[in-house]
Amino acid sequence: MPVGTQGTVKGISPQELTDIGSQVVLANTYHLMLRPGEELVRAHGGLPGFTAYPGPFLTDSGGFQVMSLGHMRQIDERGVTFRSHLDGSVVELTPERSVAVQEALGADVIMAFDECPPYPATHDYVKRSLERTLRWLGRSLEAQTRADQALFAIVQGGVYSDLREVSLRETVAFGTPGFAIGGMAVGEPKEEMYPAVAQTAEGLPENKPRYLMGVGHPEDLVASIALGVDMFDCVYPTRTGRFGYALTDDGRINLNNAASRSQLLPLDSDCDCYACRHYTRAYLAHLIRAEEMLAPRMLSLHNLRYLHRLVERAREAIVQGDYQAWALAWGERYFKGKL
Amino acid sequence: MPVGTQGTVKGISPQELTDIGSQVVLANTYHLMLRPGEELVRAHGGLPGFTAYPGPFLTDSGGFQVMSLGHMRQIDERGVTFRSHLDGSVVELTPERSVAVQEALGADVIMAFDECPPYPATHDYVKRSLERTLRWLGRSLEAQTRADQALFAIVQGGVYSDLREVSLRETVAFGTPGFAIGGMAVGEPKEEMYPAVAQTAEGLPENKPRYLMGVGHPEDLVASIALGVDMFDCVYPTRTGRFGYALTDDGRINLNNAASRSQLLPLDSDCDCYACRHYTRAYLAHLIRAEEMLAPRMLSLHNLRYLHRLVERAREAIVQGDYQAWALAWGERYFKGKL
Ligand SMILES: [Zn+2]
Ligand SMILES: [Zn+2]
Repeated sequence: MPVGTQGTVKGISPQELTDIGSQVVLANTYHLMLRPGEELVRAHGGLPGFTAYPGPFLTDSGGFQVMSLGHMRQIDERGVTFRSHLDGSVVELTPERSVAVQEALGADVIMAFDECPPYPATHDYVKRSLERTLRWLGRSLEAQTRADQALFAIVQGGVYSDLREVSLRETVAFGTPGFAIGGMAVGEPKEEMYPAVAQTAEGLPENKPRYLMGVGHPEDLVASIALGVDMFDCVYPTRTGRFGYALTDDGRINLNNAASRSQLLPLDSDCDCYACRHYTRAYLAHLIRAEEMLAPRMLSLHNLRYLHRLVERAREAIVQGDYQAWALAWGERYFKGKL
Repeated sequence: MPVGTQGTVKGISPQELTDIGSQVVLANTYHLMLRPGEELVRAHGGLPGFTAYPGPFLTDSGGFQVMSLGHMRQIDERGVTFRSHLDGSVVELTPERSVAVQEALGADVIMAFDECPPYPATHDYVKRSLERTLRWLGRSLEAQTRADQALFAIVQGGVYSDLREVSLRETVAFGTPGFAIGGMAVGEPKEEMYPAVAQTAEGLPENKPRYLMGVGHPEDLVASIALGVDMFDCVYPTRTGRFGYALTDDGRINLNNAASRSQLLPLDSDCDCYACRHYTRAYLAHLIRAEEMLAPRMLSLHNLRYLHRLVERAREAIVQGDYQAWALAWGERYFKGKL
């Protein structure tokens, strides 16, 4: 899922998202609640009317951003009180308020309000946190008034296997239409992340979507799909594009390098995006050096298309029953034997 | 003509230029010569291959930018020596070098190398300058080796009527396929600019294009078309768009204002651009406040489309023989009776 934090995937038009095959766009409850406010979005008939992307949309609960962006936050049983990173005003976010905001935003998939503990966190802290997250899940479902939005629950438990097990069992019992694997990609080493993802994915129902939150590097997608994950979101493709990097099967190309400036080749000869069909690396490297807006726009577009194609190829490999071989071959080329 | 200074119209893709009806794109010899260098553009088969805009293109001669951007410049009969605004290196630009660079860039229309005196400048300075510009015009034509590029000459003479007359007569005698009205929009008041434009346009051949350089505010277009001008270029539509302003028949809208943030209307209900077909002012004002790249992109697109439509409407009014009435009605509404 491309990330449209503030109601726009940075630099990309809705038409372009459709053209590159985006299937869902993520928008941020925390950001949109603070600015422009959910009522303005509601007045546009929700996110599709506001952003002109016809959808589907998924909104997060705001829980993660409150923890990373809110100042002077206080967490208690009721919810989280914090100061806005924009103007310092005091705001309260509770399961009830999160769901109310998400109903105003009108996404197709909304998320339960949860606490995502930092890494590292003690066993005791993670245990109390996941228990509260379960109570907040109950309140989130209770607060729901719209029947046309699928509310996904979030499994927590950090990297503690016993706590993941508890969170998994109790969360699945709520029977929500989809589940997210939360608390990952918050600074833990990959050796701790993958076992936790594997354990959670394995315990989730087979017939409901499994969404790994905040993960989106190509190698993490390829590995997590093998573990049974269906959905991802990450700012990585657009952010690394703004910094002048392009994703390809041969690894990440740095267009800030002098070498790119004379290469009369497309970014990625296998790619069918607008940038690859029209531009050389030399031209794009020139745009970067000249600080032209078209550079981040085109690199973001290409990187999103690269990840969409990567997932399309993964899907084909699964259908053909040779995912393992495909994933290994992809990884060998991507890391040029560094594996 | 949209201005693509560094080989890109800021934030706009070639496909979008085609969609909004752009007919020619201007690119800057001075900028492209310094970065990435004309040889790289030549290696792409010229500007259409480099930028992916199929053309036509027009390149300026670099004379104007040397005067405004070059440091420590020295002008003599041979040409201009200056230090690059990018890295301080010493560069010489002469009529011969300007034409050679423009042949490498490969535009359809190229401009003679001229000196554009500042405003104010003494009668004596402008006289000597225009005489040199005439000698440079001869050298520019002499230096031309490609038969497939139309070289336009530039009439100078500042705001001095007698000097304009001299420059006009001597320049027209060269019989180039098109002519530009130079030395305008460099700080002189409108009361001095319009008589000079009128005098020059009147003296130029009827059957060849007349190009007023660097002029592009809507009211200047409407007034100059009445005086017989056919072509314009200006960074105004994209620059004012990046600053959050939208051009409409009711004047320039400032989307940085709080009022825009709640307006559920398009920028311009008469406009058929992507921004006007998809977005409300409230959404675009949100993007500006959130410092999202889509804001300058969409406002630039709209403003370019506005000027293209303005010129289309002017053309229709001319064909129907009622330009004067159309222009007056347009002006009354644009200035809301302030005329
Ligand atoms: Zn591509
Ligand atoms: Zn428009």
